[in-house]
Amino acid sequence: MTAIDLNADLGEGFGRWRLTDDERLLSVVTSANVACGFHAGDAATMRRVCELAAERGVRIGAQVSYRDLAGFGRRAMDVPPEELTAEIAYQIGALEVFARAAGTRVSYVKPHGALYNRVVHDEEQAGAVVDGVLLADASLPVLGLPGSRLLELAGKAGLPTVTEAFADRAYTEEGTLVPRGREGAVVTDPDAVVARSVSMARFGEVDAHGGARIRVRARSLCLHGDTPGAVDLARRIRERLLGAGVRVEAFA
Amino acid sequence: MTAIDLNADLGEGFGRWRLTDDERLLSVVTSANVACGFHAGDAATMRRVCELAAERGVRIGAQVSYRDLAGFGRRAMDVPPEELTAEIAYQIGALEVFARAAGTRVSYVKPHGALYNRVVHDEEQAGAVVDGVLLADASLPVLGLPGSRLLELAGKAGLPTVTEAFADRAYTEEGTLVPRGREGAVVTDPDAVVARSVSMARFGEVDAHGGARIRVRARSLCLHGDTPGAVDLARRIRERLLGAGVRVEAFA
Amino acid sequence: MTAIDLNADLGEGFGRWRLTDDERLLSVVTSANVACGFHAGDAATMRRVCELAAERGVRIGAQVSYRDLAGFGRRAMDVPPEELTAEIAYQIGALEVFARAAGTRVSYVKPHGALYNRVVHDEEQAGAVVDGVLLADASLPVLGLPGSRLLELAGKAGLPTVTEAFADRAYTEEGTLVPRGREGAVVTDPDAVVARSVSMARFGEVDAHGGARIRVRARSLCLHGDTPGAVDLARRIRERLLGAGVRVEAFA
Amino acid sequence: MTAIDLNADLGEGFGRWRLTDDERLLSVVTSANVACGFHAGDAATMRRVCELAAERGVRIGAQVSYRDLAGFGRRAMDVPPEELTAEIAYQIGALEVFARAAGTRVSYVKPHGALYNRVVHDEEQAGAVVDGVLLADASLPVLGLPGSRLLELAGKAGLPTVTEAFADRAYTEEGTLVPRGREGAVVTDPDAVVARSVSMARFGEVDAHGGARIRVRARSLCLHGDTPGAVDLARRIRERLLGAGVRVEAFA
Repeated sequence: MTAIDLNADLGEGFGRWRLTDDERLLSVVTSANVACGFHAGDAATMRRVCELAAERGVRIGAQVSYRDLAGFGRRAMDVPPEELTAEIAYQIGALEVFARAAGTRVSYVKPHGALYNRVVHDEEQAGAVVDGVLLADASLPVLGLPGSRLLELAGKAGLPTVTEAFADRAYTEEGTLVPRGREGAVVTDPDAVVARSVSMARFGEVDAHGGARIRVRARSLCLHGDTPGAVDLARRIRERLLGAGVRVEAFA
Repeated sequence: MTAIDLNADLGEGFGRWRLTDDERLLSVVTSANVACGFHAGDAATMRRVCELAAERGVRIGAQVSYRDLAGFGRRAMDVPPEELTAEIAYQIGALEVFARAAGTRVSYVKPHGALYNRVVHDEEQAGAVVDGVLLADASLPVLGLPGSRLLELAGKAGLPTVTEAFADRAYTEEGTLVPRGREGAVVTDPDAVVARSVSMARFGEVDAHGGARIRVRARSLCLHGDTPGAVDLARRIRERLLGAGVRVEAFA
Repeated sequence: MTAIDLNADLGEGFGRWRLTDDERLLSVVTSANVACGFHAGDAATMRRVCELAAERGVRIGAQVSYRDLAGFGRRAMDVPPEELTAEIAYQIGALEVFARAAGTRVSYVKPHGALYNRVVHDEEQAGAVVDGVLLADASLPVLGLPGSRLLELAGKAGLPTVTEAFADRAYTEEGTLVPRGREGAVVTDPDAVVARSVSMARFGEVDAHGGARIRVRARSLCLHGDTPGAVDLARRIRERLLGAGVRVEAFA
Repeated sequence: MTAIDLNADLGEGFGRWRLTDDERLLSVVTSANVACGFHAGDAATMRRVCELAAERGVRIGAQVSYRDLAGFGRRAMDVPPEELTAEIAYQIGALEVFARAAGTRVSYVKPHGALYNRVVHDEEQAGAVVDGVLLADASLPVLGLPGSRLLELAGKAGLPTVTEAFADRAYTEEGTLVPRGREGAVVTDPDAVVARSVSMARFGEVDAHGGARIRVRARSLCLHGDTPGAVDLARRIRERLLGAGVRVEAFA
């Protein structure tokens, strides 16, 4: 019997602003990527999300980002590696306070937004992120894209690595994501997204853009929660996975 | 034989800007109040200061502040207590990463600037700071003004408290600081500052504004380091204290 | 026949975050208090709101604030007057670019949040705001609370002043607002709010907390728009005012 | 008789931090690139620099930047063009308030740091900066590198363009700057910098890296002022230019 982790971004408000429906998402996912104040996430929100996650037994991860509130971390930045390393560690440490206060720990690290995309290919920044994780805690798993420089360098450095897949994104026949902006890059039909989730989790396979069936290695599925419809879809995915005999549980 | 701790603010640059001569200060003080990013102190600076402090055996404290880079934390803010509590914990956690990476720990907490002044009298904010320290680590000493609400509430909450005095500030006959802005509030003659330091450390006494000799309870002296002259003065104070048979060492 | 202006806060998003339904609000109000980047309002949002307001003939005002994105400008701050003056002018100037580009001008200034409340009584900060307006444009009207130090000092300085009232806030028999947090401070029944709006606009009167009928001098009514229900209520108020023979138009 | 403009970055402090010696620089340069709050430059500093510049008859330019205080605008950012356009206009508008209050106007625009380097080649961002200038004031000259996309697109859009050269930077034989980081990229000998300044201003020529004499089109020389030595060097350059019969004056 296979097992899959469900992760989603949470706590992405800031001060007066809210984005994600943290309460509802936490009843669906098994891993919560918590914003740490650099692209979103004020201290009080971080504390509250950690408390809610701990109550529900949801694992807490640090969603680390470029320092860019105005751009929500979605604008690639040429941050020198020594600065980036320190910023990654800073964010992990800040979140760790609230995880510990809630009786648990930060259990993994996942880059956010433009940083996530950048460290797929950028060796210097991928290395800087790995160094930041090592600085904070050399036993922390890193969650990312299969085949990314990030996971490659994390693995070389002795960090556990966890792969994720996206049921609502199209894949090329080579197994990479069809870039956003290209026709068909995002799968918008909810039924298709649900079916792809099950296919990925049960068989490690999905239909690529073009039609071929390809392998998708993923221990975790990334769900989205920044719209009410998205949370409903996430819940359907969870239910269908359970119905298909997949265990929904955090990675070890 | 008496002992005194010498503390000073360090790492108060931000990005391209520098303020304190951290290298030289770290050869004088026994406790370093490290800015945690809210009034000053970017992540890379925090890392570097922690490494330097650990190398020299200087104790690392979290200098927590209002979130106010533009005002350097010198503008009082009506931050609701639950926000302030979370912000204090956030700053301690962020600094803890770098202290641990340098082989040591955050060993105390001291509020900065307007927050320092506010928690002398403001019960709500003093309580919020104490709650923030408790959230981060219920064994952390709090460094502050004797008689302040902060130390009173910290003590009630079971936190160790450490008192400090200012050799370059005038005291009233009641033992409180002459408010800045009043005539004679700041002692500008370096020789007088040195003499007062020795008097405070050896005898727990100082001449108050008005002339009377008063008791000043202080386990630590706060030195300033944001000008070249200030570092030289700090060094003189340290040397004269040693010459007068005072042990210069961090509080237990 | 009487005339009333309807003002509301707009453009209070930041980057990825949205708060107000600017499109719908702009079909209701005659004056738009546009956030200028200090408590909310990134540059692209400011530009878009100015374009929409200009298209609909809605007057643009600068909603100036403390520099406090994390607190949404709702935390009083002891900003030194010379800093506050410069910050007010900065915000007005930034908004003016987008108002001009949209073919119009910034036509008034209204403080936001904690600054609004502070300048009711605080002479120093009220004077600093007035100085900031004078620095930017000595002909700009200031919108505020009747009897506030802000309007008093603005008037003395030769600035036009415009008074506003709040149909959803209770008034004391002395004509001041019942402080938030007190029982009954906010009028939550929509029908009552509509009725009070008409009473204020037509007769310059409202029932005070306690029962007495009091005078309320106001050339403008402040509406709220940060919830869907609030926009619907604002629309009802506008329709009832028109139905009651009140002209709904921006102040001269 | 030839004429040259001398420009330098000013007002690059923020809050408690200072970087440039604005007073002394303003006695040397004819054009002041004033930071507008995005990489440096708080509102009070902007006001003061504008007042000092106006007193001395120094022309005020808007030094526009990415929104990146932590990185001092030195980290390239993938800002979407519509955001960048609005941010450029915002900065110009904010500075304009203080220029007008000082009795003058913002008279040109120059990008700072990473944005300056990016718009040499990046068509999209160069176009976005031009659009931002047009939005603010379609008559504003743009100061930049000869041959840059920025000046090319600015010229096409009908904006006046002004070229600048760097006496302390090595040039290739093709007339482009030797990239920082390469050996010999920066000319450190003060005498050489002075001689190159005169050569550039009087003859429009300079010795390239490699030895060939090349043409350097420049109506302005960019001087640096972020160290005491730099200001002294700037003063020497000004004096030697005057001694060589070059008129030192702002571009028309």
